[in-house]
Amino acid sequence: MLPLEAVPNFSEGRDRATIDAIGEAIAGRARLLDVHSDEDHNRSVFTLVGDESEIVDALLAGIAVARERIDLRRHEGAHPRIGAADVVPVVPIRPDDAERARATALELARRVGEELELPVFLYAGLAAGRGPAFFRQGGPAELQRRIDAGELAPDLGPPRLDESAGGVIVGTRAPLIAFNVNLAGDNLAAAREIARAVRERDGGFPGVRALGLELSRAGHVQVSLNVEDWQASPLHEVVAAVEREAAARGVDVTGAELVGLLPAGAAVVAARSLLHVDGLDAGHVLELRLLPE
Amino acid sequence: MLPLEAVPNFSEGRDRATIDAIGEAIAGRARLLDVHSDEDHNRSVFTLVGDESEIVDALLAGIAVARERIDLRRHEGAHPRIGAADVVPVVPIRPDDAERARATALELARRVGEELELPVFLYAGLAAGRGPAFFRQGGPAELQRRIDAGELAPDLGPPRLDESAGGVIVGTRAPLIAFNVNLAGDNLAAAREIARAVRERDGGFPGVRALGLELSRAGHVQVSLNVEDWQASPLHEVVAAVEREAAARGVDVTGAELVGLLPAGAAVVAARSLLHVDGLDAGHVLELRLLPE
Repeated sequence: MLPLEAVPNFSEGRDRATIDAIGEAIAGRARLLDVHSDEDHNRSVFTLVGDESEIVDALLAGIAVARERIDLRRHEGAHPRIGAADVVPVVPIRPDDAERARATALELARRVGEELELPVFLYAGLAAGRGPAFFRQGGPAELQRRIDAGELAPDLGPPRLDESAGGVIVGTRAPLIAFNVNLAGDNLAAAREIARAVRERDGGFPGVRALGLELSRAGHVQVSLNVEDWQASPLHEVVAAVEREAAARGVDVTGAELVGLLPAGAAVVAARSLLHVDGLDAGHVLELRLLPE
Repeated sequence: MLPLEAVPNFSEGRDRATIDAIGEAIAGRARLLDVHSDEDHNRSVFTLVGDESEIVDALLAGIAVARERIDLRRHEGAHPRIGAADVVPVVPIRPDDAERARATALELARRVGEELELPVFLYAGLAAGRGPAFFRQGGPAELQRRIDAGELAPDLGPPRLDESAGGVIVGTRAPLIAFNVNLAGDNLAAAREIARAVRERDGGFPGVRALGLELSRAGHVQVSLNVEDWQASPLHEVVAAVEREAAARGVDVTGAELVGLLPAGAAVVAARSLLHVDGLDAGHVLELRLLPE
């Protein structure tokens, strides 16, 4: 049996002491595999693995630190958010573990509401596919207005957002790829057009979400991508489409970055496209055959 | 700790009963991951993993079946060979396991000589890098002539090749990639030229061995490759070079096949070239991070 994965996103990408404190809280209770912090997004993405109770304990401890140290009222960053611990997905690495992941995420949601007294909004695998963007439009103020107007309510915890820490979006989802393509210059309009060209919402790749963002600290613009279904939309094809769209606008791609870790299958699919081996998949990769069945 | 791998090559790619009998002997004693049989090569490559004693027991049992069932005097095939069990590498999946692999291969060599009474030739990690081609030139008859002339001698076992089963080349090596690129048509001269263009011996990629072969049963020619150092010579670059060389000769690449399994790093390096993520390596692949440290 494989461990479960969790990929909590915290709204702090600049203050090293806070990022480290969250990391220590997590690493003391589960296996922390990766931390990706971005100053412009002002956001850090942690990747951890563990069994059910390790995942719940580590996430609860990390969210408690974020609740204590992150004040959304003073937060600014390119990435939309409604919480200090903004979105906390529990991820079944294999589809067979979906039910374990759901039970784990629900237990986490209950304890965040009861013990940390933060409102919890269920999403994705715990809410019929409803995405984080549903909650984030307009930020915490708009979310509180919708709650007050009776348009929606937290699923667990208190009925009001915490003034400082906001709320927490908790759910389960399949492994996804968070991926940024960096574009030279400051042409935010071009980045947004490219995002629209490739994302599902506007007729692009299935399961791809994309935003054009301005990264003023880094001094360039970016197409920030979530590839939710890398089998339907191979990452390398999405990246190639971004490159084509950029070239068509006279914009240079300067590089790309992975946020968190890459599902092995996505790497194998990319390799297959270069190697011309029909049917090459994760079953043909030596090290992947050494994992528990 | 990871298991050891072994990739024995047997000189039978046509008779299903013999291939299955070898597979059963192996699978009863270690974990058999892959069997790749080729009728034109008249050769089967087995991939297995296990601990030291599982590897020795499984290989010894497989070689015993081959000794019984394969008669080199009646063998014909595109791939050079000097034994029924022609070459038997034990592979440390991680460099740290090189000493475990050497001890295991030496124990196997000793038992093949003593118990199966076949001459054993040490190679690669057990013989200062000497490759299998050193023994195979001219086939079993030429090898016996060199032994009789005192040019070389088996390292273990009897001093004469077995009339039916030949000898066994045993050693250790790093994970390599055995890979065939298939070319339309029957232009064997072109396949040989392309092999020369990409292989180390003739000024091509470091650590790449290549042969142009005629596959009369399949009805085409082939560039058969061993990429011994996929870090120095990325597989996707070698394949691209084969494609370029083929195009320059007006020959179509119809596809490619992997023999055995692919080291994960080679897939990640290929993916990196398409994704433009600097430094992307196996440490960024989720499932690979779940293996024992």
